[in-house]
Amino acid sequence: MRPIGLVDGRLIDLNENVVPMEDRGHQFGDGIYEVTRVYNGRCFALKQHMDRAYRSLRELRIPATYTFDELKGFHELLIKESGITEGAIYMQITRGVAPRAHGFPENVVPRLTMSIRPTASNTALKEGGAKGLFVPDERWLRCDIKSINLLGNILGKQRAKEAGCFEGIQVRGEYVTEGTSSNFFVIKDEVLWTHPAHPVSNLILKGVTRTIIMEEILPSLGLTVVEKPFTPAFAKSADEAFICGTNSEVIPIISLDGAPVGSGQVGPITRKIQAAYEAIIDRECGRK
Amino acid sequence: MRPIGLVDGRLIDLNENVVPMEDRGHQFGDGIYEVTRVYNGRCFALKQHMDRAYRSLRELRIPATYTFDELKGFHELLIKESGITEGAIYMQITRGVAPRAHGFPENVVPRLTMSIRPTASNTALKEGGAKGLFVPDERWLRCDIKSINLLGNILGKQRAKEAGCFEGIQVRGEYVTEGTSSNFFVIKDEVLWTHPAHPVSNLILKGVTRTIIMEEILPSLGLTVVEKPFTPAFAKSADEAFICGTNSEVIPIISLDGAPVGSGQVGPITRKIQAAYEAIIDRECGRK
Repeated sequence: MRPIGLVDGRLIDLNENVVPMEDRGHQFGDGIYEVTRVYNGRCFALKQHMDRAYRSLRELRIPATYTFDELKGFHELLIKESGITEGAIYMQITRGVAPRAHGFPENVVPRLTMSIRPTASNTALKEGGAKGLFVPDERWLRCDIKSINLLGNILGKQRAKEAGCFEGIQVRGEYVTEGTSSNFFVIKDEVLWTHPAHPVSNLILKGVTRTIIMEEILPSLGLTVVEKPFTPAFAKSADEAFICGTNSEVIPIISLDGAPVGSGQVGPITRKIQAAYEAIIDRECGRK
Repeated sequence: MRPIGLVDGRLIDLNENVVPMEDRGHQFGDGIYEVTRVYNGRCFALKQHMDRAYRSLRELRIPATYTFDELKGFHELLIKESGITEGAIYMQITRGVAPRAHGFPENVVPRLTMSIRPTASNTALKEGGAKGLFVPDERWLRCDIKSINLLGNILGKQRAKEAGCFEGIQVRGEYVTEGTSSNFFVIKDEVLWTHPAHPVSNLILKGVTRTIIMEEILPSLGLTVVEKPFTPAFAKSADEAFICGTNSEVIPIISLDGAPVGSGQVGPITRKIQAAYEAIIDRECGRK
């Protein structure tokens, strides 16, 4: 079992130099990415991730030069060659290599880089919950695109880490948007609230886990969700809160800015959503 | 005369693969850059550019691992080895290479990549002026940092290019901020207006050319400048307008959104500023 990489179909060592300095990923952050989880040696929600990758490419007008079947094949190859059965596959596509100038270069071929690594267990966080810190949302206005322009996310995450919190919950103007690498939900009087995503708003990423929760899990649990902006004060007054994402899965947020959310314990609705999410993984990846 | 690169002190071919895929520049845009002009085989305003690079590093908390003398030496080496006497040197420092996670990695060494290329002549634009197009400013809120998170700039520049304009003049909310790769000034009743920079505002980059104009040229010409936000309508009603930057130098903007600025000809104050800027280059780089 060893982490490995892949560049345009060729397997590589992760330490190998594979990027020229004038790759537009390296000089402009001009590219998109996806992270897909591997459970029991199978990709989870791969189609949803790749569909979103194609949308991100379209929004940035980077040509799509790999078919879904090719990308699926690369994911499977990484699993097979690495021997990693519980992990995460990172995939990045940049606009390509060209002499540096802001406008789109002509006649360049986008570059694909991928890697697979085992995932660290987050059982303790999923069981016991995590602390959140409100941080200013300093990102650009196209957070609907899963781009590699991630400095705002980095600075927010680091601020949370240094305050002893697991996640920074970003606030733009009056309203809570999302975590620095997750979506954010609060639950009040058995109704779930979360910030709207595209096509209504470009200020958050439409997370794959968020969509699974909203379209599959909540209907099955008979729960109502509203996509509306809410304030940090509203979030602090909630009964429960959680973050979700490909890496996080569903992690309860038991405190915000040091104050307990609800009872300060993981709430019953969050527990039901966690269990339902695990069941979907079990089913899709043939786990257990 | 040939474009070449340099990675952490080592000369390279620009097409060489020089960073691994997990360089944080490549995966997060987690780094800073500077562009310094070379005239007559000498760097122009190098100290100012490197001082700004150190500030950008501090703001992102990337450790500075090269002294000014080392960076100066690398600039001189690139000029000598390339034989390029009229060109531009690009310098980028990323946080380093680490397994992908948003927070700052520990024990990583920042990576320096540099290149030198000849510059294309912009004489026609400086003489005849250029067209500007107002575009939405979609960038993050820390535009005072010269970071490589440049997707907002790219999309704005491309939008301008496709409208047949040289530069996109960005507008955030009600106010004009700056060009996608330049600062922007308008002149009305012999007073210059430009958006405030740090420490007053983080919404624009404090350009080196902008500073030279404001601190050296305008006082010598007896001209007044105010750093205040202004609207696109105000800009359209101006007598003259120009963009400035390391690559652009001073380029008159003779139309905005298709409507002439003032007479639609390059104005007399812009001409004086251009001449004064050329004279400073002549003096500092021993040109002519």
